[in-house]
Amino acid sequence: MKIDSVDFFYLSMPEILDIGDGSQDALLVRVRAGNCEGWGECEAAPLPSIAAFVCPMSHSACKPVSASVLGQNLDEPADIGRIGKLVRGNSLDLPQAAHTLSGVDIAMWDLLGRKRGEPVWALLGYRKSFPRIPYASMLFGATPAETGGKAQKVRAQGYRAAKLGWGTYGGGKAGEDEAQVAAARGGLGDDCILLVDAGTVWGDDVASARARIESLERHRVTWLEEPFVSGALSSYRELASACRTMKLAGGEGSHDFGMARQMMDFGGVGYIQIDAGRVGGITTAKKVADYANGHGVTFVNHTFTSSLALSASLQPYAGLEGEMLCEYPVESKPLARELTGEHIERDSAGFVRAPDAPGLGLAPNPTTIKKYLVETEIKVAGKVVYRTPAL
Amino acid sequence: MKIDSVDFFYLSMPEILDIGDGSQDALLVRVRAGNCEGWGECEAAPLPSIAAFVCPMSHSACKPVSASVLGQNLDEPADIGRIGKLVRGNSLDLPQAAHTLSGVDIAMWDLLGRKRGEPVWALLGYRKSFPRIPYASMLFGATPAETGGKAQKVRAQGYRAAKLGWGTYGGGKAGEDEAQVAAARGGLGDDCILLVDAGTVWGDDVASARARIESLERHRVTWLEEPFVSGALSSYRELASACRTMKLAGGEGSHDFGMARQMMDFGGVGYIQIDAGRVGGITTAKKVADYANGHGVTFVNHTFTSSLALSASLQPYAGLEGEMLCEYPVESKPLARELTGEHIERDSAGFVRAPDAPGLGLAPNPTTIKKYLVETEIKVAGKVVYRTPAL
Repeated sequence: MKIDSVDFFYLSMPEILDIGDGSQDALLVRVRAGNCEGWGECEAAPLPSIAAFVCPMSHSACKPVSASVLGQNLDEPADIGRIGKLVRGNSLDLPQAAHTLSGVDIAMWDLLGRKRGEPVWALLGYRKSFPRIPYASMLFGATPAETGGKAQKVRAQGYRAAKLGWGTYGGGKAGEDEAQVAAARGGLGDDCILLVDAGTVWGDDVASARARIESLERHRVTWLEEPFVSGALSSYRELASACRTMKLAGGEGSHDFGMARQMMDFGGVGYIQIDAGRVGGITTAKKVADYANGHGVTFVNHTFTSSLALSASLQPYAGLEGEMLCEYPVESKPLARELTGEHIERDSAGFVRAPDAPGLGLAPNPTTIKKYLVETEIKVAGKVVYRTPAL
Repeated sequence: MKIDSVDFFYLSMPEILDIGDGSQDALLVRVRAGNCEGWGECEAAPLPSIAAFVCPMSHSACKPVSASVLGQNLDEPADIGRIGKLVRGNSLDLPQAAHTLSGVDIAMWDLLGRKRGEPVWALLGYRKSFPRIPYASMLFGATPAETGGKAQKVRAQGYRAAKLGWGTYGGGKAGEDEAQVAAARGGLGDDCILLVDAGTVWGDDVASARARIESLERHRVTWLEEPFVSGALSSYRELASACRTMKLAGGEGSHDFGMARQMMDFGGVGYIQIDAGRVGGITTAKKVADYANGHGVTFVNHTFTSSLALSASLQPYAGLEGEMLCEYPVESKPLARELTGEHIERDSAGFVRAPDAPGLGLAPNPTTIKKYLVETEIKVAGKVVYRTPAL
C-alpha cells in the first residue's frame, strides 16, 4: 500500500509557562495508507516541524520531509527504515527534519502494528515486553523544602526511583544545589533510586560540574543527567572519568544515531537516554538500543509528555531483559494526560511495560485533539502549503 | 541601543532544480537597532528557519529565536556573543534555531561594523585581512568528458585550485568515480590543487570510501570532502588513518561549536569547513577557527551562494596568516550573483580576501530582493505571526 496522507495536528495548553515542562504542547502525526491509520507524536516545536514537512525544496539535499514520505510503499518494517533513510539524505541540510521524521516514523510503526494485529515491539523482533522500573520524573521544587515534599509524595505513591531536575539546579552556588539534592534524598528515603538532571546548565564547563560530584555521590545519586549540552563530548568524558560511583546520563538531544553513538563512544555516558520523538523515531531509537546493549551502556527512554509518547519510547528496548529503568512522567499537563483515553499505568508490583495491544497500544482521543487544537496556516507564494487538517 | 526589529526575506529562483546547488534560494536577515542596520544570510531552508524565529514557545528550552534577540542591547561585539548564548539555551530543543541564529548573528556583526566604520574582521580582533587562494567550487559533469571540460575552463580562468563534487560521484562503481577524478585532474593540469567532494554519499560506510583512496591519492587529490555524514565520527577517524597523502575535509553540516570540534577531536579531519550561515554565524565560526588554529587543523570557509555569504564566511579566519584556501562559488544561480551589487572578485594575483569596507563590505541589492521575493505568511491561532516584511 502507498502512503496517502500525513497530517499534523498542533495542540497546546491555553497558556505556555516558561518552565522546563515539555508537556505543554504537542505535535501529533497521523499517517494513512490503504485503509490503515497510525499515530505518532513529535517531541518538538510544532510550527518549525510542520514547516519542515511542507517547505519548498531548496536543493537536492534540502527537501521537505514530505518529498521522501508521501506516495512511498509501506508494507513491512523494512519500508519504514528505507523511508527514514530517504528523509535523512534528502533533508540533510534541514536540521528540523529529524523531529518531523520522528513523529512520522512512530506513526508508520503504529500503522503496521495495527494492520498486523501485533504490538510494535513484536515487529521489532522482540519476543516479549519486559517490565521496567518507572522513575518518577519531576522538576525540582523552588526550595529544598518543596523538593523534599515532592520526593516524599512519590515515595508514598510507591515509586522505587525518582528523578529531579531543572529549576534553579546548577545555576547558583554548589551549596544550594546540595541542599536540593539532600532534600530529595531525605524525602525519598534510603532505598529509593535517586537521579539528578542538570538540564545542560553548565554548557561545557567541567569545573562547575565537578564541584558537585562529591556531594552527589554522597547522597548516592545513580546518575547525573545532562551536565553539558549534547555536543560537549570532551567535557562529558572528562567528568565521567572524575566520577567514582555515579554515572553520567545523556543523549535526549540526539537527533540521529551518530549523535547518540558519540555520547557513548566519546562522551563516556553510562546511560543513553533516547526520545523516540526526537531521535528519528522508533527505528533510530532501536538502532541506538542495540548499539548500547552491545557496548556496556544502559539504554533508557526519555519521555516527559503523553502515554502515546511513552509507548513509542518504550518500544525500542521493550524486549531487553534485566532490571532497567524507564522515565515516567508524573507532572504532565492536562493536554498530555488527556491525549489518550487509556494510559500506561504501573502494575500491582509497580512496574510499567510497553503495551501488548497492536501498534502502540494507545490512540489519541479525538475530543482532546479538538479541545487543544491550534489552528495553523502557512502560505508560500500565494499558495496554502499547510492548513490544520480535518479530523 | 536596543534591537528594534529582525526581518526575514525569503528569496527563490522561479524554479528549483533537484541538484546539489544551494544557490537556488536564500534567506536574508535584516537587523535594525537605533538608526543602524545590518544584513545577514542564513544557509538554510527558508520556511522552517523563519518558523524557528516566530513560533510560539513550547517550554523554557524551546523558545523561538526571537525571544532571545528582540529588545536586546547591541552596543559591542560581546553583546553578539551574549545574545547567541541566550539563543542556544532558550532554543536548545529547536534544532532549526542554529540556522536562524546564523543569519541574525551575521547581520549583527554587519550592523556593528557599519556603525563603527570598521570591517567585521577588525571587530574580531584581526589586524588585517590576508589573501586566500580561491578554489573554484563546482559540481561534477554528467560524464568524465563534461567534467574535463569544466576543469579546463577554470584552469583557463586562472584558478590555482578547484573542487568537484556531488553529481553521481560515489554512488556507482569505483572505476566510474576514478574516470571522473582522472578527467578533472587532466583538465586542471598538474599544477592545480584538486579537491573532491563526496557529498556524504557513503553515509558511514568506510569500505566504500576506502575503495577510492588509492586512486584519489594517485591523482593527487589534496582533500576528500564529506565521505560521510557529519555524525559518523568513527568512520571519519578510520578513513583518516587509512589515508597517506590525502586529508579528509568536513564540517559544513556543523550547527554549533561542539559538532565542529568533534570533527577535529574525534573524526581526524585535516580541514574543517565552516559555513557561517549554518554554524551559528560569525561568532561560532571564529571560535572554530581559533580552535582549529591551535590544534593543527586548517580552517576553510564553506560557501556555495552569494558574495554576502562569502564575506561572512571569510571573516572568521581573515586574519590568519599563511597560504590558505577559500571556497569560491563559480556556478551560482542569478539570484545569488545578483544579490549584491558589488562582488568579492579575485585580485590581479588571483587571490580573494574579506573586504576592507565597513561591516561585511557588501549589501543586498533592493531590486534583487524584490525580483526574487517569495511572499510568505504564517498564521497561528488566528494571528499572523509572520508576513513578508516591507523593504
